[in-house]
Amino acid sequence: MTPDQLSSKINTYLAKLIPAEPRTLYDPVRAALSSGGKRIRPMLTALSAGQAGEAEWLPAAAAVELLHAFTLVHDDIMDNAETRRGRPSLHIAFGMNAAILSGDVIVALATAALARAPNAGEMLAEFSAGFRAVCEGQALDKDFEERDDVSMEEYLTMIELKTARIFELAAALGAMANGGTNLEILRRFAREIGIAFQLQDDLLDLTGGESFGKTIGGDILEGKRTTLFVLAMKSYDKCGDADRTLLDRIRERGATTDDIPLARSLFEKLGVLEETACMAAMHTENAERQLEYLPDLQRDGLLEFSKRLLGRSV
Amino acid sequence: MTPDQLSSKINTYLAKLIPAEPRTLYDPVRAALSSGGKRIRPMLTALSAGQAGEAEWLPAAAAVELLHAFTLVHDDIMDNAETRRGRPSLHIAFGMNAAILSGDVIVALATAALARAPNAGEMLAEFSAGFRAVCEGQALDKDFEERDDVSMEEYLTMIELKTARIFELAAALGAMANGGTNLEILRRFAREIGIAFQLQDDLLDLTGGESFGKTIGGDILEGKRTTLFVLAMKSYDKCGDADRTLLDRIRERGATTDDIPLARSLFEKLGVLEETACMAAMHTENAERQLEYLPDLQRDGLLEFSKRLLGRSV
Repeated sequence: MTPDQLSSKINTYLAKLIPAEPRTLYDPVRAALSSGGKRIRPMLTALSAGQAGEAEWLPAAAAVELLHAFTLVHDDIMDNAETRRGRPSLHIAFGMNAAILSGDVIVALATAALARAPNAGEMLAEFSAGFRAVCEGQALDKDFEERDDVSMEEYLTMIELKTARIFELAAALGAMANGGTNLEILRRFAREIGIAFQLQDDLLDLTGGESFGKTIGGDILEGKRTTLFVLAMKSYDKCGDADRTLLDRIRERGATTDDIPLARSLFEKLGVLEETACMAAMHTENAERQLEYLPDLQRDGLLEFSKRLLGRSV
Repeated sequence: MTPDQLSSKINTYLAKLIPAEPRTLYDPVRAALSSGGKRIRPMLTALSAGQAGEAEWLPAAAAVELLHAFTLVHDDIMDNAETRRGRPSLHIAFGMNAAILSGDVIVALATAALARAPNAGEMLAEFSAGFRAVCEGQALDKDFEERDDVSMEEYLTMIELKTARIFELAAALGAMANGGTNLEILRRFAREIGIAFQLQDDLLDLTGGESFGKTIGGDILEGKRTTLFVLAMKSYDKCGDADRTLLDRIRERGATTDDIPLARSLFEKLGVLEETACMAAMHTENAERQLEYLPDLQRDGLLEFSKRLLGRSV
């Protein structure tokens, strides 16, 4: 199945899951789900399900996508993010209460989707663990905003919970839809690819083009504790006065657009961009190394997924 | 099992489900769950489970209580409620973000609890439907705040979704833990008792004493669209000027404590208090009529539950 075919299939399935009324509840849900997500996670579920039939994996794939959609809605509230993929975020478009409640009901729809899976009982424990981890990751992310001394190890723990764990959930549910075949291998692949994805996402803040749908330097302006910032702060004491002042401005969320090229130069000088790219490459390699144990067809599909996800030529 | 024994059992079970860290996430969760709830819903699960063993019904009972706890946390945010059972509500005590995220993770803990039930897969569909209904009920409740023409029929639909459906869920999961024995009877009992409970809750706003842990006339001060208000508004056109002005003040959320005795007198004069009591009694009767089909022991337990819940002598 091509990514477009999968997207179309998952969109059709999701559309049928969302009730019409009350509209104050479900119109925001529809908006959240039609905002141009790439359906990366359900694709991972589908690919992890090997030869299993659609009836086995599609409910789980939908559940994962809904869980992901829920996190975006509530995270945007907590982060005061006014836009998401170039559109007003849900709490801006529909108000705070509607965004909280619509986020909640998206979880209810996720569990309803999961309930349709033939082995829903077994999948539920996995789903709950992933759901919990995502919340814990977000809690750490918010905690880190108040701190200046976040270590790279702590940061990696956070993105494992917040980002990689939902990739792992997507793959694990796919494997479970296929009788648990290669469950642990697929888990490890997904976790590593999820970490690589987040590291690259952090890197693209400064190195990506407009084509990534993000404002260049957005993380700098928001003073986000990303890989780049965490690594740069490790060299804080070695920096000169001007560079320290720049890092302080970013840290205190006082950076302006003028600071973006300066930050880029500094991060380049400190080797931060290279180190991040290198870490992403290492996790990608770790992921792809898992694939050799899989049947040819599945391996090829997941390798293509990995290349597409990380923006390398397929 | 006495209510105290059940409370103690469920509290022990819940305490074990909540991880220690991150504390910014789980301290609010612990606060939400230790705020003196009466564990009514898990009691209903236990009683509906008949002779089934604890391993069968306890996970489901915990899941229902957690779902209920989650609704309180997020509803308090949406309602701008500053206290809950005499304590600062979660978003006041821990901040908005912590309250949103802790509410979310309570749902994750609920699904984790449910996953421990032997027939979790079957229960999940029921859980999802109840979860969805609770969100829909809250959406209607918020919609009604913007309207002056809510009919009693619409109001009943709302409380069926927001209040009665979670009672129904509690009972249905209990029955499912017992191999589905008397599932439909227990469902109907719980739904009717849930409606009676909400009607009585509305009534107690004016007729209850401080022992109910609520501010007398709190609903009047907040201009809530309760049964009393909805019924009173049906007589709006027949009211004199002074009474209309009072109803307008309540509707526009401008009532003061001086208005509370006035509202009580007016509602009494309009027969609203009597009508509400009568409706509550009717739903209680509907509920208790279901019990005659049940085995003696279960019937006695549920009858006692009903009497205790609705504050009649046991």
